Amino acid sequence: MSINPKLITQANQRFQEKPLLKRDLSYYVEGIRAGNRYILSESITLIESTISEKRSLGLEIIDAFKEHKPETIRIGITGTPGVGKSTFIEALGRYYIGKGHRVAVLAVDPSSYINKGSILGDKNRMQILSSMPEAYIRPTASGATLGGTAIHTKETIKLCEAAGFDVVFIETVGVGQSEIEVGFMTDVNILLLQPGAGDEIQGIKRGIVENADIFVINKADGAMLPLAKQTKLFYRNAIQLFHHKVEGWKCPTLLVSSVDHTGMDEVFQAVNRYKALLQDLHYFDKQRLDQDIRWFHQKTKELIEKITLNQPQLKKAYGTLTDEIQNQSLSASGALAAIESIIKSLFR
Amino acid sequence: MSINPKLITQANQRFQEKPLLKRDLSYYVEGIRAGNRYILSESITLIESTISEKRSLGLEIIDAFKEHKPETIRIGITGTPGVGKSTFIEALGRYYIGKGHRVAVLAVDPSSYINKGSILGDKNRMQILSSMPEAYIRPTASGATLGGTAIHTKETIKLCEAAGFDVVFIETVGVGQSEIEVGFMTDVNILLLQPGAGDEIQGIKRGIVENADIFVINKADGAMLPLAKQTKLFYRNAIQLFHHKVEGWKCPTLLVSSVDHTGMDEVFQAVNRYKALLQDLHYFDKQRLDQDIRWFHQKTKELIEKITLNQPQLKKAYGTLTDEIQNQSLSASGALAAIESIIKSLFR
Repeated sequence: MSINPKLITQANQRFQEKPLLKRDLSYYVEGIRAGNRYILSESITLIESTISEKRSLGLEIIDAFKEHKPETIRIGITGTPGVGKSTFIEALGRYYIGKGHRVAVLAVDPSSYINKGSILGDKNRMQILSSMPEAYIRPTASGATLGGTAIHTKETIKLCEAAGFDVVFIETVGVGQSEIEVGFMTDVNILLLQPGAGDEIQGIKRGIVENADIFVINKADGAMLPLAKQTKLFYRNAIQLFHHKVEGWKCPTLLVSSVDHTGMDEVFQAVNRYKALLQDLHYFDKQRLDQDIRWFHQKTKELIEKITLNQPQLKKAYGTLTDEIQNQSLSASGALAAIESIIKSLFR
Repeated sequence: MSINPKLITQANQRFQEKPLLKRDLSYYVEGIRAGNRYILSESITLIESTISEKRSLGLEIIDAFKEHKPETIRIGITGTPGVGKSTFIEALGRYYIGKGHRVAVLAVDPSSYINKGSILGDKNRMQILSSMPEAYIRPTASGATLGGTAIHTKETIKLCEAAGFDVVFIETVGVGQSEIEVGFMTDVNILLLQPGAGDEIQGIKRGIVENADIFVINKADGAMLPLAKQTKLFYRNAIQLFHHKVEGWKCPTLLVSSVDHTGMDEVFQAVNRYKALLQDLHYFDKQRLDQDIRWFHQKTKELIEKITLNQPQLKKAYGTLTDEIQNQSLSASGALAAIESIIKSLFR
């Protein structure tokens, strides 16, 4: 995408108000190339900005890495609040780092943090991992409650990968829009469950179960171990109901203890086996490209809906007609016929 | 909705080209009020027409019955091809007629017929039912392959109810868009399954299982009976995974034989129990109104998307940008930024 050079100059002038830092494009690109976590954070903030000059500069940074295609894996981690996602990611992240990888952790659904009332911020949820130089944890942006984060997660992933984080965890709670979002950006999806038959699954959307590639039962330790084993059996049977999208893949059901750090190798191996299968089928890169296109189509539809429905004339009619159906003074088909002609009248 | 009287006059003039029939609004309204199946068919054809004068007249007919609120039940019947939907509907329909009801059968997804290559038409699939004066079976319109039928099914239901058909079966195959459509128009949903553990469920969309209120295993007769009983057990366990939207409702799993006409009373009773529960919770009428509003919102979004994406400038850019993502000459975020400004430029 070509960006108006004037905008970039303006953006740079803005930064030069802070004279100690020469924050031009090369500042960011070189910082990211060097794996600098502070500059990575600054770049992500640009991408998330609602100021178009900043956002344009952010897109320029991503574009600078267009030819850079490192081998990476994007791992979706979904589970309802309380299942222990943070401790699991901390344990698995440390395992990956022990194997020589660098790990980034992103959250699609910021409410996963907000609901837990975390005043200390995300970093305190993963104390050891966040202190390691091989890890990058993206704290929730303050504006994220407005749903802004998810839109930019795809771009954030690319920046993290450019900065040398070759394992990217994308955390979601799996109850809202997040499972749709995560479907546009992960290579493999882990569904985290806790001991106790069937009840957890009811708290998460059906689509999540359908999209999971690996089922992990957390808290398989101490007094919970027998129940965890029962739960494993239960889910292994239940999973038979669901056909996996990749032929030849039988979704494994694994037991882990994030506290005792057991089972991490099995998860690591399962991810590798799944990635290898996708690569054998020449589906790994294709899936990412398909996701890009689906993401573009989905976001375009959302934009069309938002921008069109915000046209004052239509917005007003939409509300009035809804009320009339509610009052039963108009049939739904009558309302639709009326709104169709309004939509058609909107365009130049 | 007010309709231009001139249009109606024009429409009437069109009909008066056939001088033997005086087809004005009262012809249709009176015919429907009398329960005349031929005039009911003609009215549905008006609703489905792409000629706006005819469609307007169709809407006028529905409007004439706005105050008429008979007690009816709209029963969704979903099942993959081969499960025996036609014979089941024939058997259950005859059971309802035996109880003093009048029964209409509609199909949301016309491909359910077309895939079966039925040259003889739908009526021949339900030979006995279709010959009964208490039944009305709507054959697939020839233009229905274009997806037109589903849009108008909601209106068709209202016409059937106005004509005194107080039990309306809405048949879908549950593999395409149809489960979304059916969610806008049924009071109770029956999922029809066949003996054989789990395999059938894989052929239908997850949403169908989630939306089903009553599970019916067909072909529970002769040599299949033991397998049907096993299947019942299997589904009863699997269903535990799914919370029903109505608290206090445990989805029953019933065995029937459409050939031997066994189990029909159990299905009839289950439908009645479900309806009674909804009425106790004051949810029966509310659900219909909610469906009307959701239908209006969904169809409005679809119209917005269709009409906006068809604006020549946007249509062209959408294709070009998709190609550029596919060729990897442009990032998905770059494409989205480009299309956003095009969308914004479309409006007056």
